[in-house]
Amino acid sequence: MSMRIIGKDEISRVLTFPRLIEALEAAHRRARIEIRDTMLGTPEECYYVRHAVDAGRYFASKLITSFPANLASGTLPAVQAVVVLFDARDGRPLSVMDGTEITYWRTAADSGLGAKYLARDDAETLLVVGAGAMAPWLVRAHRSVRPSLRRVLCWNRSEQRAHRLAGLLSAEGAAATAVQDLELALRSADIVTACTRANEPLIRGEWLNAGTHLDLVGGYDMHTREADDACLRRSRVYVDRRETALDVADIAVPLKSGLLLKSDILGDLYDLAAGSTAPRRSAQEITIFKNAGGAHLDLLTSELIFSMLEQ
Amino acid sequence: MSMRIIGKDEISRVLTFPRLIEALEAAHRRARIEIRDTMLGTPEECYYVRHAVDAGRYFASKLITSFPANLASGTLPAVQAVVVLFDARDGRPLSVMDGTEITYWRTAADSGLGAKYLARDDAETLLVVGAGAMAPWLVRAHRSVRPSLRRVLCWNRSEQRAHRLAGLLSAEGAAATAVQDLELALRSADIVTACTRANEPLIRGEWLNAGTHLDLVGGYDMHTREADDACLRRSRVYVDRRETALDVADIAVPLKSGLLLKSDILGDLYDLAAGSTAPRRSAQEITIFKNAGGAHLDLLTSELIFSMLEQ
Repeated sequence: MSMRIIGKDEISRVLTFPRLIEALEAAHRRARIEIRDTMLGTPEECYYVRHAVDAGRYFASKLITSFPANLASGTLPAVQAVVVLFDARDGRPLSVMDGTEITYWRTAADSGLGAKYLARDDAETLLVVGAGAMAPWLVRAHRSVRPSLRRVLCWNRSEQRAHRLAGLLSAEGAAATAVQDLELALRSADIVTACTRANEPLIRGEWLNAGTHLDLVGGYDMHTREADDACLRRSRVYVDRRETALDVADIAVPLKSGLLLKSDILGDLYDLAAGSTAPRRSAQEITIFKNAGGAHLDLLTSELIFSMLEQ
Repeated sequence: MSMRIIGKDEISRVLTFPRLIEALEAAHRRARIEIRDTMLGTPEECYYVRHAVDAGRYFASKLITSFPANLASGTLPAVQAVVVLFDARDGRPLSVMDGTEITYWRTAADSGLGAKYLARDDAETLLVVGAGAMAPWLVRAHRSVRPSLRRVLCWNRSEQRAHRLAGLLSAEGAAATAVQDLELALRSADIVTACTRANEPLIRGEWLNAGTHLDLVGGYDMHTREADDACLRRSRVYVDRRETALDVADIAVPLKSGLLLKSDILGDLYDLAAGSTAPRRSAQEITIFKNAGGAHLDLLTSELIFSMLEQ
């Protein structure tokens, strides 16, 4: 058993958003990758396992532990993960990788690919809602697909973290500033990327600019929702992958209430990459992209990392 | 992410059957470990994942690939596996181990623990049916719980492999001989351990000695069965774990036909370890132990390996 352990530093050394987004786009033109999720344990001591099978190419699993009590001690993060990659030509185990790092990259790249099809080409203002761990990654991915972006606005419920994020992004060369008024910020944004754990929608449709692209990343179950009904009513709605998006509140709740019909979901990344659904059609329409994730993204990201390191 | 990769050689260096069987026995006196299996892919390119959660102690997954076509090329085994172990006090990933090696150890130790409760104390003759990769491991485990064993008979459909197995076991100090006549061998055995991929039962109840302990390891799905109805009719029936044993033909087929009632399954290793079911009661009765496995065994084995290496 000769498996390569690949940590965070090696991943950062080889991976770039242009390469990763290009790889995801190419993969979405191939057959759908089979995915399966299982949850064991309890919410306090949770073991969440996600698997993907890309026949004839790769198998991968992301094994995730969630121990919210870790936050109190502060020595370990609440969520930890590893990704295991296999060669699906002969079943050989290839590598074990830092799953937390892969989650950042693949989640942001998924949103980047969505914005590539759906955001205006001339988008200048990016608003980040939520200044958690994902926020800088989302900014990097959006800037990589929309070099036209000139400024980044950072909003967070606690202002201090918004300032810290703006500082971090400025150090990376983005013209980032913290903002306090979410409504005002939304009214001036061309792209909005939201990654919060909001239980009640905090993005209100009445505040959205014509032409906005709204990227919803934070809601991950039936209890976390970021955009209100008015957002959906005003928008053309897309998702990253139909199978996973139907299980999260931003899509599932309006589907259940009848506000949204399944036919209102205009397509997912497979449809967009194949050209079987139209991307943005005008500078005026508002688009929503619900990023719900899936183990296919972990597989594709770990595959790219592995092959870049083996070159 | 600092994970320890543990290969086959390190496992062999620290693990022994007395230690492993003792650890399995102790674990079966604690709460049942939560287990979950999932299968993806196709029979030709299969990804089989098994998970276990031992709350407050460890989480583990065994990720198994099965590529039967590998046998033709001969460079890789058909089945390859890795085990990933996590600390379930804080979710930390601890180790990635050679899953194939763990499968050998834990499967044989499971049978060893069954024989500890169910085989006669004075058993002298062990018959191994099937000379595949598991065979020497099963012999080692049975010899470890029954030092009274004086001889090992090796039977295999193709005689040449039985001879090879007998040679290997003799080199380890067991008085092993290959036998050609399965009926004759069964009539003289005190313990029978079967690990074949037989589709039709090859062990006939009429051939069993009074007092025999029959350890069934090979049948792993609804199509592979080793013991015929007469074996079950003459025996007191035990399994390693109820949840997994109900899904394999040696138990499921007679349950379905009505030959066996659920109440005829006298107990599993949890019951035997807790003393809530009786082990062997006399030197005359025939006992059957169906070894169906489960991810709890992978967890316990990898936990023991890890803690022995960390000492």
